[in-house]
Amino acid sequence: MRLRNKPWADDFLQENEAIVVQEPFAHKNSWQNLFLQHQPLHLEIGTGKGQFIAGMGNQHPEINFVGIERVKSVIVGAVKKVLEAETENVRLVNENARDLRDMFGENEVDHLYLNFSDPWPKTKHEKRRLTYHTFLEQYQSILKPDGEITLKTDNQKLFEYSLVSFSHFGMQIEEVQLDLHEYSDPLNVPTEYEEKFSGKGQPIYRCRVSFKG
Amino acid sequence: MRLRNKPWADDFLQENEAIVVQEPFAHKNSWQNLFLQHQPLHLEIGTGKGQFIAGMGNQHPEINFVGIERVKSVIVGAVKKVLEAETENVRLVNENARDLRDMFGENEVDHLYLNFSDPWPKTKHEKRRLTYHTFLEQYQSILKPDGEITLKTDNQKLFEYSLVSFSHFGMQIEEVQLDLHEYSDPLNVPTEYEEKFSGKGQPIYRCRVSFKG
Repeated sequence: MRLRNKPWADDFLQENEAIVVQEPFAHKNSWQNLFLQHQPLHLEIGTGKGQFIAGMGNQHPEINFVGIERVKSVIVGAVKKVLEAETENVRLVNENARDLRDMFGENEVDHLYLNFSDPWPKTKHEKRRLTYHTFLEQYQSILKPDGEITLKTDNQKLFEYSLVSFSHFGMQIEEVQLDLHEYSDPLNVPTEYEEKFSGKGQPIYRCRVSFKG
Repeated sequence: MRLRNKPWADDFLQENEAIVVQEPFAHKNSWQNLFLQHQPLHLEIGTGKGQFIAGMGNQHPEINFVGIERVKSVIVGAVKKVLEAETENVRLVNENARDLRDMFGENEVDHLYLNFSDPWPKTKHEKRRLTYHTFLEQYQSILKPDGEITLKTDNQKLFEYSLVSFSHFGMQIEEVQLDLHEYSDPLNVPTEYEEKFSGKGQPIYRCRVSFKG
């Protein structure tokens, strides 16, 4: 899904500083100040081309959204989507979120989305999966005690792995859907990936988990 | 899957008292005495026509198996399967296992199988699903502290429900397989149901859970 490198991308991201947060690490513990209103903060890891976060921003004006995407040539698309959506409650971050605790304070986030994350299928790459326990430690730190994570993927093995990883970390599984588009969930905002794979008839897996366990 | 009532079934079950346990409630805390060897005890709830338990008995001579099936005209088939398998480590019980604690003592069972249980799809019948919390309390009582439950089903909603129910009960999810027959698990023993549905290309879901959580 990566586009060719765009030399004008740097300029474009700087021009849109109202949407693209320029120094994200400086806003630890003060993300609410970047928004017009203080309201729940939802974070998407791996925002891609932004269809999900722009759609969610539009559907939920009562929520502030932050999307992180490390690939510059990809996040450009997300900026355009947010501009088109004319929504004022979405901010984007072009960073490799190596440790989210450097960017967000304790309990600063209300909800976290992992959408179609890289499955890293090889066992030797297990540590890179965004549901490996070292990532869960980060999420637990930045999420409020009653905060939740929603995971969506078309990757069967990543989903199987993630359910076990959540459970072994002591997390609680609140909801599981093994074929999301069989349900008519009018509130589901699909990602670009999701539309593509679901259109081919492949099941989309979704779960919602918490640290209440 | 129920066969017509067989008037000769009573006689047949009594004739095979070496396999069919005649007074199961009398054996609470002493199930091992019904077997040739004292070795781990595995219990299947809803044995049906017995392909699973007869196959498992054959594959695992180092384990003692008990299968419970409430429908008389169905368990007759299981008796025949066990006779054909010529395996000496399988016993069958024709009872409605309303409360397993009346039949098994605390920590008496090592592993429990729920194979293609009735999904009871209506919300008002939730209490009848074999993964409803009142059943989990029974399983926790009769299983050893490190005992496990293996659930197999082709029913998507029952599987989704069960994962959440296990997790909310504080149980730990040890393994999840969302399309069992995509894996080449040479040790999987299919039930009659499973062969039928898997043959049609439907996914078979399986999980293994514990009370370690």
